[in-house]
Amino acid sequence: MGGWAITIHGGAGVDPNLPMERQEQAKAVLGRCLEIGIAALRSGAAAVDVAELVVRELETDPVFNSGRGSALTALGTVEMEASIMDGRHRRIGAVSGLSTVKNPVSLARLVMDKSPHSYLAFSGAEDFARAQGVETVDNSYFITEENVGMLKLAKEANSILFDYRVPLENTCGTSAGSVVTMDSGMQMNGLPISIYAPETVGCAVVDSQGWCAAATSTGGLMNKMTGRIGDSPLIGAGTYACNLCAVSCTGEGEAIIRGTLARDVAALMEYKGLGLQEAVDYVINERLDEGKAGLIAVSNRGEVAYGFNTIGMFRGSATENGFMEVGIWE
Amino acid sequence: MGGWAITIHGGAGVDPNLPMERQEQAKAVLGRCLEIGIAALRSGAAAVDVAELVVRELETDPVFNSGRGSALTALGTVEMEASIMDGRHRRIGAVSGLSTVKNPVSLARLVMDKSPHSYLAFSGAEDFARAQGVETVDNSYFITEENVGMLKLAKEANSILFDYRVPLENTCGTSAGSVVTMDSGMQMNGLPISIYAPETVGCAVVDSQGWCAAATSTGGLMNKMTGRIGDSPLIGAGTYACNLCAVSCTGEGEAIIRGTLARDVAALMEYKGLGLQEAVDYVINERLDEGKAGLIAVSNRGEVAYGFNTIGMFRGSATENGFMEVGIWE
Repeated sequence: MGGWAITIHGGAGVDPNLPMERQEQAKAVLGRCLEIGIAALRSGAAAVDVAELVVRELETDPVFNSGRGSALTALGTVEMEASIMDGRHRRIGAVSGLSTVKNPVSLARLVMDKSPHSYLAFSGAEDFARAQGVETVDNSYFITEENVGMLKLAKEANSILFDYRVPLENTCGTSAGSVVTMDSGMQMNGLPISIYAPETVGCAVVDSQGWCAAATSTGGLMNKMTGRIGDSPLIGAGTYACNLCAVSCTGEGEAIIRGTLARDVAALMEYKGLGLQEAVDYVINERLDEGKAGLIAVSNRGEVAYGFNTIGMFRGSATENGFMEVGIWE
Repeated sequence: MGGWAITIHGGAGVDPNLPMERQEQAKAVLGRCLEIGIAALRSGAAAVDVAELVVRELETDPVFNSGRGSALTALGTVEMEASIMDGRHRRIGAVSGLSTVKNPVSLARLVMDKSPHSYLAFSGAEDFARAQGVETVDNSYFITEENVGMLKLAKEANSILFDYRVPLENTCGTSAGSVVTMDSGMQMNGLPISIYAPETVGCAVVDSQGWCAAATSTGGLMNKMTGRIGDSPLIGAGTYACNLCAVSCTGEGEAIIRGTLARDVAALMEYKGLGLQEAVDYVINERLDEGKAGLIAVSNRGEVAYGFNTIGMFRGSATENGFMEVGIWE
């Protein structure tokens, strides 16, 4: 065993022109949430508790697309979803279609701990939240002015936006100032779609006992159809944990689902004997043939790894031996 | 390539005391649906079309727990879900929380073909159904007298029934007349639960071109909480297809989800080099440590396979070389 380790993300796919101020703001949130996780791990907290705690913080901060700050549906409402998996005994909880629950990841945790089911959605999930007495707020709490503006832009472009901070133009500069041409013909399930990058949040943790856990939370896609479910609440797609590793994904949900990305990182370790980073690289290179996404992972040996095939991914990680990193670009 | 092959199921976990008349009735439905699939395959239909066609038939017949005949929620309503996956290009479609759509599997197909998303649920899925003009009926159409009675029994027992045809007693006879003791302490997510066996339906097909597809459809659990999502709509859990094989699962949804059973059959072939039946056996023996379920599968070589660790599984299969079988018990 290599001690505890933690890695977090705030979404794959970043506007290459993202203003420096926003980059610093995102990094500050990532750093703060990482520190919260590190402190909990140092005090001996279990992986599953740390994953929930850190994702709660990421949800509560409006910078990323989860909880407050969630992307809006085509109707201008917020429908959030989340999941959590404890690698110890492979316990799971998931929720979709939440409109008033302040912290979706904690309701997913309650589904795992307190319901006879593993996954509750929409009004049934809301009823369960009330029965459990979790904090609820008006849907307007989740809606930020910036997102209202981006929904307007998305509607004008008649497009489902994967990242409301990526400009709609097909040509844009990179962070280094050079110009790259974005694919204007990107498609999903045969229909046109704009550029990717939901700022979904997630956390993968291994604790000092070697137990792994992961959690993921999102508001989904800007201008999505109401009722749309992405990869974040789906065990094996957006989230997976077992006795070997824990994984949280972000990006084009539909590609992550059909690639079963999170489970495949673990399956490659389990069935093909790959190491953590090898498994992550294989999944990004071989399982993402049509999609654009990224993921973070930890192993039971205290390793951290990440991979993405988007322009950037908001991420941070730390290990017990003192390593700590927060980054956005390659 | 070994020609086309098809396999179907009507649920894992069967009351060992199931009256002979009901056994014959179930076998007749399975045989009839198998013949429909065989005829389509002989005429050159694509795997994905055959999977949808056959599951539609299983949904329409009230014998199994999908479409008409679906299990009831705690509120006495029907909430259906389904998914379909075309191994060719790994295309996917899924739906949950349907209350008026006559054939959920066909709405899952439309999500795959006609929506920008892969998975729609509850009122958003119903809105999409209306926009697509699919046949809808009143929720009462799906509710059978037998299921109303079983919901009453389930409520009296304060239990979520996995099979409304399995007696609630802890001791029951086997099909051979001997007596087995059922585990009275079965738990799911730490809460007590009664005996398993949703009569979910599913189909896995390989066509004469070697393309694989799978589809699964269910009403879920008797007396389930409203909003509960099981494994059937989840790609990688209840349904999976790729260029190697296609799989459909049935049983305790929560165990199937955390075991990512359908994906793991394919992953074992892809990453560990196992044959189809070997992969199925491994999944049943190694990935179902806490749950009870079953699954059917086909390979791109025209093989069929199945496995279950319940008392029985309603199933049938046929291959181009003339093999045909319908069965319930081991």
